[in-house]
Amino acid sequence: MKPDASGADVQKVLQVIEALGFRGHTLPGENRTAIGVTGNRGSIDPAHFENLPGVADAIRVTKPYKLISKELRPERSVIKVGNANIGGPELAMIAGPCALEDHQQVFATAETVAASGAKFFRGGAFKPRTSPYAFQGLGEEGLKMLAEVRDQFGLNIVTEAMDEHGVDAVVKYGDCIQIGARNMQNFSLLKYVGQTRTPVLLKRGLSATLDELLLAAEYIMAEGNYDVILCERGIRTFANHARNTIDLSIVPAVHNLTHLPVIVDPSHGTGRNYMVTPLARAAVAVGADGLIIEVHPCPEEALCDGAQALTPSQYMELVSQVRALHELISEPVSAFAEGHGP
Amino acid sequence: MKPDASGADVQKVLQVIEALGFRGHTLPGENRTAIGVTGNRGSIDPAHFENLPGVADAIRVTKPYKLISKELRPERSVIKVGNANIGGPELAMIAGPCALEDHQQVFATAETVAASGAKFFRGGAFKPRTSPYAFQGLGEEGLKMLAEVRDQFGLNIVTEAMDEHGVDAVVKYGDCIQIGARNMQNFSLLKYVGQTRTPVLLKRGLSATLDELLLAAEYIMAEGNYDVILCERGIRTFANHARNTIDLSIVPAVHNLTHLPVIVDPSHGTGRNYMVTPLARAAVAVGADGLIIEVHPCPEEALCDGAQALTPSQYMELVSQVRALHELISEPVSAFAEGHGP
Amino acid sequence: MKPDASGADVQKVLQVIEALGFRGHTLPGENRTAIGVTGNRGSIDPAHFENLPGVADAIRVTKPYKLISKELRPERSVIKVGNANIGGPELAMIAGPCALEDHQQVFATAETVAASGAKFFRGGAFKPRTSPYAFQGLGEEGLKMLAEVRDQFGLNIVTEAMDEHGVDAVVKYGDCIQIGARNMQNFSLLKYVGQTRTPVLLKRGLSATLDELLLAAEYIMAEGNYDVILCERGIRTFANHARNTIDLSIVPAVHNLTHLPVIVDPSHGTGRNYMVTPLARAAVAVGADGLIIEVHPCPEEALCDGAQALTPSQYMELVSQVRALHELISEPVSAFAEGHGP
Amino acid sequence: MKPDASGADVQKVLQVIEALGFRGHTLPGENRTAIGVTGNRGSIDPAHFENLPGVADAIRVTKPYKLISKELRPERSVIKVGNANIGGPELAMIAGPCALEDHQQVFATAETVAASGAKFFRGGAFKPRTSPYAFQGLGEEGLKMLAEVRDQFGLNIVTEAMDEHGVDAVVKYGDCIQIGARNMQNFSLLKYVGQTRTPVLLKRGLSATLDELLLAAEYIMAEGNYDVILCERGIRTFANHARNTIDLSIVPAVHNLTHLPVIVDPSHGTGRNYMVTPLARAAVAVGADGLIIEVHPCPEEALCDGAQALTPSQYMELVSQVRALHELISEPVSAFAEGHGP
Repeated sequence: MKPDASGADVQKVLQVIEALGFRGHTLPGENRTAIGVTGNRGSIDPAHFENLPGVADAIRVTKPYKLISKELRPERSVIKVGNANIGGPELAMIAGPCALEDHQQVFATAETVAASGAKFFRGGAFKPRTSPYAFQGLGEEGLKMLAEVRDQFGLNIVTEAMDEHGVDAVVKYGDCIQIGARNMQNFSLLKYVGQTRTPVLLKRGLSATLDELLLAAEYIMAEGNYDVILCERGIRTFANHARNTIDLSIVPAVHNLTHLPVIVDPSHGTGRNYMVTPLARAAVAVGADGLIIEVHPCPEEALCDGAQALTPSQYMELVSQVRALHELISEPVSAFAEGHGP
Repeated sequence: MKPDASGADVQKVLQVIEALGFRGHTLPGENRTAIGVTGNRGSIDPAHFENLPGVADAIRVTKPYKLISKELRPERSVIKVGNANIGGPELAMIAGPCALEDHQQVFATAETVAASGAKFFRGGAFKPRTSPYAFQGLGEEGLKMLAEVRDQFGLNIVTEAMDEHGVDAVVKYGDCIQIGARNMQNFSLLKYVGQTRTPVLLKRGLSATLDELLLAAEYIMAEGNYDVILCERGIRTFANHARNTIDLSIVPAVHNLTHLPVIVDPSHGTGRNYMVTPLARAAVAVGADGLIIEVHPCPEEALCDGAQALTPSQYMELVSQVRALHELISEPVSAFAEGHGP
Repeated sequence: MKPDASGADVQKVLQVIEALGFRGHTLPGENRTAIGVTGNRGSIDPAHFENLPGVADAIRVTKPYKLISKELRPERSVIKVGNANIGGPELAMIAGPCALEDHQQVFATAETVAASGAKFFRGGAFKPRTSPYAFQGLGEEGLKMLAEVRDQFGLNIVTEAMDEHGVDAVVKYGDCIQIGARNMQNFSLLKYVGQTRTPVLLKRGLSATLDELLLAAEYIMAEGNYDVILCERGIRTFANHARNTIDLSIVPAVHNLTHLPVIVDPSHGTGRNYMVTPLARAAVAVGADGLIIEVHPCPEEALCDGAQALTPSQYMELVSQVRALHELISEPVSAFAEGHGP
Repeated sequence: MKPDASGADVQKVLQVIEALGFRGHTLPGENRTAIGVTGNRGSIDPAHFENLPGVADAIRVTKPYKLISKELRPERSVIKVGNANIGGPELAMIAGPCALEDHQQVFATAETVAASGAKFFRGGAFKPRTSPYAFQGLGEEGLKMLAEVRDQFGLNIVTEAMDEHGVDAVVKYGDCIQIGARNMQNFSLLKYVGQTRTPVLLKRGLSATLDELLLAAEYIMAEGNYDVILCERGIRTFANHARNTIDLSIVPAVHNLTHLPVIVDPSHGTGRNYMVTPLARAAVAVGADGLIIEVHPCPEEALCDGAQALTPSQYMELVSQVRALHELISEPVSAFAEGHGP
């Protein structure tokens, strides 16, 4: 309340709180009175109070998510994707081209990915492109190639869906539905994938806060699909030395609040070939559960995002570096048995 | 090219350009050589060149849009929405509650809106909410109320669609499909509304650049629906004195590049009741073609975004202020006959 | 407190509060207990509590400023700068070149500025330039020119100081010390200008929040110089259609919290010639107390920021437009007698 | 040039280029003509051209820095600070409290820092605080304590200066002058430290681009002080799960363009105790030359930034983790002998 709020102003606020079915507690101070609200399930819109007479500010304290919460489930979730896990002791490597282009490109890349020991293959058949005149992907034909890759190389397939038709197709041909950054708050799509039982890789929106990312996951889980993997892929800031600003602090923040696994995409997160390997190392060092990496047999001819794709040899080198780092960090009797988490 | 690039490096870049079907021009300088690319239709991914040996940087010069462009159509577009226009000499006023709640709220608000002389009524039946546990809207029942509002008050209906089902419903009951900020790059939805012949109000995404906004419009128009109205509704920044940072400079920027009308939403753009009227004035002064304003008979009981809704009397005052301003700015023989646009 | 916090955790927090000399109030709720702190002067670092056992979050409620506050002084401050006012009923026009270049440029511009009826002349003698190799200003020689401008045209001089030496020089030759955006949190400089009795034009930092801007003003006032004028000049965001994103919502926010005048710089705020006049209109419409505008007799030859400088004729047109707008908004018996401020 | 630019428009641009003493090259394309500029030393303000008739856009290609550039000096710089190095094969550990508070706190912390094997001690005697009412530091008394720490523990002293007086004091008592984020573009201060021969730790501004950071270093070096160490300490974004967004991609970007060492401050970069160690690991993994860490014997009683300070035992654990990581990454015959830098 404002310093000059009257007793009647305070009573009015308390009445509104009670009218909404909650409980109000007055907290008199030297200069002003605070009023706490309890008894609510979920959050209350501060708007109910902000414009009442005498009210200085309305502050939300409780967090509005439930199913993703560590309070609900203290141990970390391990998500089964096809025949392998994300979130367990093993670092999940998901690799492949940004966009599927043709049989030769897909199979050459898949061979590299399988050879590296990765268990997941990525590749876009439906491509969200900023311009309507850019290459939009191979569509269902691409998904059939991915199913072939699974059969031939034993790789589990992670691929994006942009709409309900795409979700149906990925459920049919793939192992994990990727929801892209631009669709992170496409709530209709989130509900639709929530009704499938296929795991979902949910990429953080370009300007999504942690809360918004977690509530997007909550949308999916509220429909009954609990197999959600979060993914940091860079946020939009003023900085212009990379395509996006990769925000690694979200990894410990996610582990602090939720039981969900979180992986990092240093390819989209930086948009620059020479930054991918250093940032992949950093992502593993910060505690990410996995990486998603773009590889292309010939990046300078890629139809999409070639600037960030690694060549096969760069990719093999990345894998050997992050494996060594992950092993060091995971040593059970080392300094890395984290002792001071909150 | 880098200063130490060899002649062979330059030749390699030229070969790549030619292999892509374009024309390359070498431009030798004192310290380094630049290579220009022409002959392309639409933009070329700089990725084709960034990782070639000797290349220092690849810079995009041409803009990738066509149909929205003033070069294509120099005069401003006037969009017919129901029985009224957006983009013409009259300031378009679109007003109503954030979310439709019940018959009483909708009709009380519509009465105010009609009395103000506004020609457009807004109200959300399908609500994109950050939390799955927040009120999600009345759905089709709400759209039927809107159709009643049109019949009774002669107001044209602007309302949001979040998916294909919603688009079909809005086409049936309303006059203008609103695409919300979170769906601005939901490309499947953009294509779908592009296939209707109902006008589209396209809100700028929370972190959309001007180019991305224009290309989203281009997506709709490329499908054959040319009736697109752009809307600035605040962007996401570090600033925390308002819910979003309203970016009025986009209004002259849109008018500078395109023939499309652009309106401003100071309600979402600020999220604060006391800022709505000043920013509405500013939007008209900067040259916006219209305003979209939230009005609620009783903002502190609103189920959604009450903090920013105006009371009916605040709204009537806003209308009288912006009308006076718009009249002053539109005087044909005044100082406002803009003489120095680019 | 966290849901599982023990009674001992609560007691520990209360002890820390008391050890710091404040008063703690426990507020039990259904799921968790909140603890309020009162009795503090100024703010308390939440860090005192965030890492105590059982603490879920520490939230700051009270604002940390005093002297700038409307609670301290409800009526608006009018600042006397030379022989004219900023903050009163008249719109303050401050105009001139970005950088002083030579006698001819300065006097040609001053003639235009005086002819427009503006009462303040701006021009940089000490220039903060991003690159050490860019033109750094004429220094004291420039200030002497400004003093001549004052004598000859009766214009009051507003000019930037970057350090203590510069402050001394501006106090000697000018009427108002400008603190640039990059120095908004140069606290040593703020204290130094606080010890003068020359009015200060304090520009908002590129990424300054409202609170940080107000506390920078508070730094100056805490030293005894109460003549502070705030200035919005655009913030740094991802948006790239203008050089900065001009944030007009800060104008009503400043007037809502403080008694200080606030002006707007649409020249730096947009960085683009064709946007300056529309944004100047918007700034006046939103309620700004004045404008600061760059004018140059020949913008394309300017040594600094030519892209945003207006030609003399563009500037004269701007002045006539904003004068008409300001007159309309200031009519005492009009719709503009603001009735619903918070 | 715009598509409709005339031959005369092109000639006018070429004349302006020549009038400025540079060379212009016309590059005709199918739709429009481009004009390249060469022969310049340093950058040219695009403003010279942006408002000429027929000009569509002016794009800067050449980078405006020289002394920091790898083109000038291909091998990495190793900076001698007191009796130890930053930038060489050893990871530089700089640790200590945010603010010096009293003899007991300083010496207890120094003992921990020395025991960890770190070679640098940090601690603020002059504190830039957002509020004038917050603790401003011990001043020169604090610097004398730091000199004692150096004598007693053999630690090299890194401490902030906010103005010329502070620089003189740090030169007298310390080994490295820290320039804080808020002063990164305090150009007068940069020039002043450039005239000393004491190494400078230059922190990135809250909204500084890479170019601005590099040009700030260039300011110092242009005065003759070549011992500059860059420091990433988090940038300001919309994200609110950490106090700042730590931008690790700037580390490879700095190494890609410059010969300067770059360290990371995960304490200020996150502002949260539980994030400091994971982000410290990530910083080492990404290739940082060192870390700057806040340690406090009793963080919950700290007068400044307690929320981010590590306890002595947390700090010792951090050191053991980052040492192991740095050793792994530095193994000469491992996968980490980076083979694909640009």
